[in-house]
Amino acid sequence: MHIKRLAPALLAGLVLLSGSLSAPARADEGMWPLNALPAATLKDKYGFEPTQELMLHLQRSAVNFGGASGSFVSSDGLVMTNHHVGSGALADLSTPEMDLFKTGFLARRREEELKAPGMQLRVLMSIRDVTDRVNAGITPATDTAAAGRMRREAIATIEKEESEKTDLTARVVTLYNGGQYHLYLSKTFTDVRLVFAPEEDIASFGGDTDNFEFPRYSLDAMFFRIYENGKPYKPSNFLKVATDAKEGDLALVIGHPGRTQRLLTLADIEFQRDVAIPFQLQRLWRSETKLMVFAGRGKEQARFVGDDRDGVANGRKAITGQYAGLLDPEVMNAKRAQEESLRAAVAANPDWSSKWGDAWKNIEAAKQAHRELFRPLAVLQPRAGTLVRRAMTVVRHAAELAKPNDQRLREYTDAALPALYTSLYAQTPLNLEYEQYQIEQYLLWITETLGSEHEITKSILAGESPANLAAKAVQSSSLRDPAGVREAIEAGGAWITKNADPLLALAQRIDAAWRPLNKRFEDQVESVERANYAKIAAARFAVLGSSAYPDATGSLRLSFGAIVGWNDPEKGMVAPFTNFQGLFDRASQRTGEPGFTMPPSWASAPTSLNPETHFNFVCTADIIGGNSGSPAINTKGEVIGLIFDGNIHSLPGAFHYDDRMNRAVAVDIRGLLEAMEKVYGAKELVAEIGK
Amino acid sequence: MHIKRLAPALLAGLVLLSGSLSAPARADEGMWPLNALPAATLKDKYGFEPTQELMLHLQRSAVNFGGASGSFVSSDGLVMTNHHVGSGALADLSTPEMDLFKTGFLARRREEELKAPGMQLRVLMSIRDVTDRVNAGITPATDTAAAGRMRREAIATIEKEESEKTDLTARVVTLYNGGQYHLYLSKTFTDVRLVFAPEEDIASFGGDTDNFEFPRYSLDAMFFRIYENGKPYKPSNFLKVATDAKEGDLALVIGHPGRTQRLLTLADIEFQRDVAIPFQLQRLWRSETKLMVFAGRGKEQARFVGDDRDGVANGRKAITGQYAGLLDPEVMNAKRAQEESLRAAVAANPDWSSKWGDAWKNIEAAKQAHRELFRPLAVLQPRAGTLVRRAMTVVRHAAELAKPNDQRLREYTDAALPALYTSLYAQTPLNLEYEQYQIEQYLLWITETLGSEHEITKSILAGESPANLAAKAVQSSSLRDPAGVREAIEAGGAWITKNADPLLALAQRIDAAWRPLNKRFEDQVESVERANYAKIAAARFAVLGSSAYPDATGSLRLSFGAIVGWNDPEKGMVAPFTNFQGLFDRASQRTGEPGFTMPPSWASAPTSLNPETHFNFVCTADIIGGNSGSPAINTKGEVIGLIFDGNIHSLPGAFHYDDRMNRAVAVDIRGLLEAMEKVYGAKELVAEIGK
Repeated sequence: MHIKRLAPALLAGLVLLSGSLSAPARADEGMWPLNALPAATLKDKYGFEPTQELMLHLQRSAVNFGGASGSFVSSDGLVMTNHHVGSGALADLSTPEMDLFKTGFLARRREEELKAPGMQLRVLMSIRDVTDRVNAGITPATDTAAAGRMRREAIATIEKEESEKTDLTARVVTLYNGGQYHLYLSKTFTDVRLVFAPEEDIASFGGDTDNFEFPRYSLDAMFFRIYENGKPYKPSNFLKVATDAKEGDLALVIGHPGRTQRLLTLADIEFQRDVAIPFQLQRLWRSETKLMVFAGRGKEQARFVGDDRDGVANGRKAITGQYAGLLDPEVMNAKRAQEESLRAAVAANPDWSSKWGDAWKNIEAAKQAHRELFRPLAVLQPRAGTLVRRAMTVVRHAAELAKPNDQRLREYTDAALPALYTSLYAQTPLNLEYEQYQIEQYLLWITETLGSEHEITKSILAGESPANLAAKAVQSSSLRDPAGVREAIEAGGAWITKNADPLLALAQRIDAAWRPLNKRFEDQVESVERANYAKIAAARFAVLGSSAYPDATGSLRLSFGAIVGWNDPEKGMVAPFTNFQGLFDRASQRTGEPGFTMPPSWASAPTSLNPETHFNFVCTADIIGGNSGSPAINTKGEVIGLIFDGNIHSLPGAFHYDDRMNRAVAVDIRGLLEAMEKVYGAKELVAEIGK
Repeated sequence: MHIKRLAPALLAGLVLLSGSLSAPARADEGMWPLNALPAATLKDKYGFEPTQELMLHLQRSAVNFGGASGSFVSSDGLVMTNHHVGSGALADLSTPEMDLFKTGFLARRREEELKAPGMQLRVLMSIRDVTDRVNAGITPATDTAAAGRMRREAIATIEKEESEKTDLTARVVTLYNGGQYHLYLSKTFTDVRLVFAPEEDIASFGGDTDNFEFPRYSLDAMFFRIYENGKPYKPSNFLKVATDAKEGDLALVIGHPGRTQRLLTLADIEFQRDVAIPFQLQRLWRSETKLMVFAGRGKEQARFVGDDRDGVANGRKAITGQYAGLLDPEVMNAKRAQEESLRAAVAANPDWSSKWGDAWKNIEAAKQAHRELFRPLAVLQPRAGTLVRRAMTVVRHAAELAKPNDQRLREYTDAALPALYTSLYAQTPLNLEYEQYQIEQYLLWITETLGSEHEITKSILAGESPANLAAKAVQSSSLRDPAGVREAIEAGGAWITKNADPLLALAQRIDAAWRPLNKRFEDQVESVERANYAKIAAARFAVLGSSAYPDATGSLRLSFGAIVGWNDPEKGMVAPFTNFQGLFDRASQRTGEPGFTMPPSWASAPTSLNPETHFNFVCTADIIGGNSGSPAINTKGEVIGLIFDGNIHSLPGAFHYDDRMNRAVAVDIRGLLEAMEKVYGAKELVAEIGK
């Protein structure tokens, strides 16, 4: 499952790397903007020459799940994605009496479709280069921190203007680590309804054990429908279905890979390896245990946190694999050789040397500053549940709205506010016992990380024990009700300061501790990295020539590769397709073990199910967290599968893509449709897909 | 379950504290040497005047499990302890085909009793004060580190001489943190056979959720028999049974509490709170996750690591409770007030001040040194499975045996060697997949903790990745077979140095990195603490007078308290006894949840089982990790129960014992005997107990 779930981790500071620094991209490497494909490779290796028309078709068939992917698969706005992408909505729609993870869900008629609270989907309508405007007024003489501020201000202004001009959502995306800035205009949908979800037991069949493995047997699929003005939305484009994919075929993957940093310097890689990743692993082990303990309190508690537990286990397995990659001396030696070679080429040219020669040591200094800031900054980005998130938003909203638009934190600029309000006022279920538990665990986490004598710990605990403070914060807060949130947002700063709500007081203390550290981070780390990674990108282009794709940033990309297995050092030759027979075999081999329980619908599956039907497959497309839910498409633009995972080699492979070992894992559209029809009796839905 | 399992954690550097610094012990507080009981309290509160004869009876009925406790309960050498104390032996005796945790075990005839590999039990025969001899030649002018070395040498010499004089095992125990040294002479038994174990599902009924909780319903009991010369051993003393215990009765508890440090200074408490405990929690969360992942590989892997998983989960819950206690501002404020009051009293007296006044700042300096040494020292005490432990022993054995007896590490002195060889050559089952996994995880743990650029990490990995190094270390090592271990031990140093075995090479690198750090630890931390805690103990005695018991050190102690419930802030009044009806009720309330599965023997329990029979109970006796398996005894010296746990309040309560809330938890002897007879048909065994 679960390449989606990488995304939040990545955005919190973890980065992915690749060994592609000094070499042209390997044949199937790369996450390409749809308007800048590697035409020569596609033609030479696959005999494929994509038309602009096909690319626009794919662009407008793709659906952005905000950290994950999906696609239109019918003229009535039906959207296909993964079960683990839609699981948040599934959790919000479940109740103690009706656990949709256990039962699955099928709306047989439009009226039965369930509106997912707070869900926002987007479709990309156009892209424009705004690099010159973002960099306007900045010269080589401009102070780095000041240049960083100027760019942030320009971005806020552009986004505001463009949002006001149209009904589209405007977002400026940074490409090539600061080499280019593109404006993305998207249509946003907020009426999204659940149509079909299988039971979690089959969606994530194999559990933690089979996660990131192959052969694989998971029905990791979910369907939503987008509505507009109370009616099913009629998309301009949607994907038709092809049921003839075979070994060796080229598969195109469109989706929203979250973040790669394949240009990282050695100093930055070492920072990841020795600071960020170990810290993140510790947090994940801790969370996994804490969630297990909470789930042990009872059946309802276990149900409520089930989705969070899956997410944490998935992140832990992913990061463990990345870390193993970074501890492989061969990987680091290759990285070192590449960096030395590029730096030597720059040093040998006086012009290049004067323009770019200082980039590496500037980044090294930034990473040194980052080492000091990392742990306090990490604990001041609270992972403490819904109530604390609401309180943080209320507090920051009041502070930020008092400033001019271009001076605000990015989440609070005018262009960003509609999405923020939609999310904030959504009627999602709240479990107060879980909220209190999360706050207590968060406060303990600060204390464990910084020590109880650290000034940040002391300022946040304010003389209370974590347990007492958490209890007080939850007991009487007006933010437990979305109406109270709205009231607090509208009342603003003075009201918040006067308000005795212990939850808001806690949020204010967190915000007060965070702001000076974030300022230092922006000036000493982020701005320095932007400026100097842009230099390295320019140097790389000058030394090595073109053939580079920009690092992933959550924007729409195309990956591609062949449907082929691989020769595994432990497993031997792995074939590219699995089938239903393999599912039943594995279930019987592992009966009674965690993750291998078949739901009743499959335990008594109809005999009409063809054991030979393709169920899951792999291809060499280069994907990463955020690609979950991406359609796999043939060269005619028809959907052949649904990406939901990478194999285990694709985890350390994030540092150096290797098409001999790295594989994307997909549900085969044939297995999906046959299961929907024969196991779930979803005849109407199957008939609609591709039509 | 699981107060036993605290012990290894404690010995690895975690300590337990109490608020008893400036106040006389609370009524039921204390773990008392059997020759120094609080006679006045026992008489005033309970009207109990123990005779010397009774105390000797208890001393010789007690059985030392090395980190846990037990007692003789028949004239034929039958020993009662907890299931979780005997679980290591149970794991060694289980096979893929016969999992004794699942099935339980009952030997109906002596011939069916199963010899536990490597198990060593001891019975304390006599105690002698050797303080003067340990301190001989040390004056106030002696350098602290030198004094520490002189004491260690004296202890090694005393133990060697006494071991040679008798067939008893000699051990010098440090009391009052260095105030007294006592010589303990024990009889050691190495032929120990399993007689009865219930299924783990009932032994630890309630699992992680009910662990450290009450009301409780666990049959946490196991029986062994000691043999000597191939025949059941005839102990000089054993406990008879009393079946009339009732609320309000006084219960005596004899056992081997592992380690308390209720005299810790504030600086030492802060070290525990901010350094040792957070680090230990991180390690436990990590281990819990890593073991879960390993268990996910398959049924046999899950079986093999089941006992380790229980131990880690138990430690995690225990330490979590302790940490919460230390984060309670009230607890720390009380500690601070007590320390200030004692220091003020010392400062006010010029003689005291000159003798003891510098103790607190000396310990503070030692803790500062300890902060620097803590993490590298922690990772150099490998938790990496049986093979690495064997290799470390082989390497150190060769190095230490080359030195005079009184210069050796304590585990390698002549007096300690017999126990070391017994343990080292035991034929315990080895799972090579698990060994490799543990080594890899251990190497990763070093890397995560110190970073890959740390000189220790680099010296231990020696240019390999953790995965490759672990694979090589296991693949061809001669230490996989106990005969190979014996060969390596006998071959000694030159052979080891020449030997190309990658496992031995790894152990040598670990040992080489550890020795200079351990030397610094002994000189800058341990010796300073010994000397200065002895001063504080003397000051405390002078200022506050007697009434103090020595901190627990794993030696035999008596605790006592009434069988009474408590008024819980969350649960209200908790009654002191549970019964079988409560067990069945809880099982049906929590059907299907982890930890609440009844084994088949109980799911179809005979109707003759009396639902009113007492099953578990609590009393106010002051216990700690190591007391697991202790008998609870009435004032006539008859066994009424079997201690197996403390309640949740007894965890932070380790810092400040409070008889209003702290409770020891026991299996009632009546429930135990009725279950053995009616559920397991162990009629012969029940007839033997107490006879």
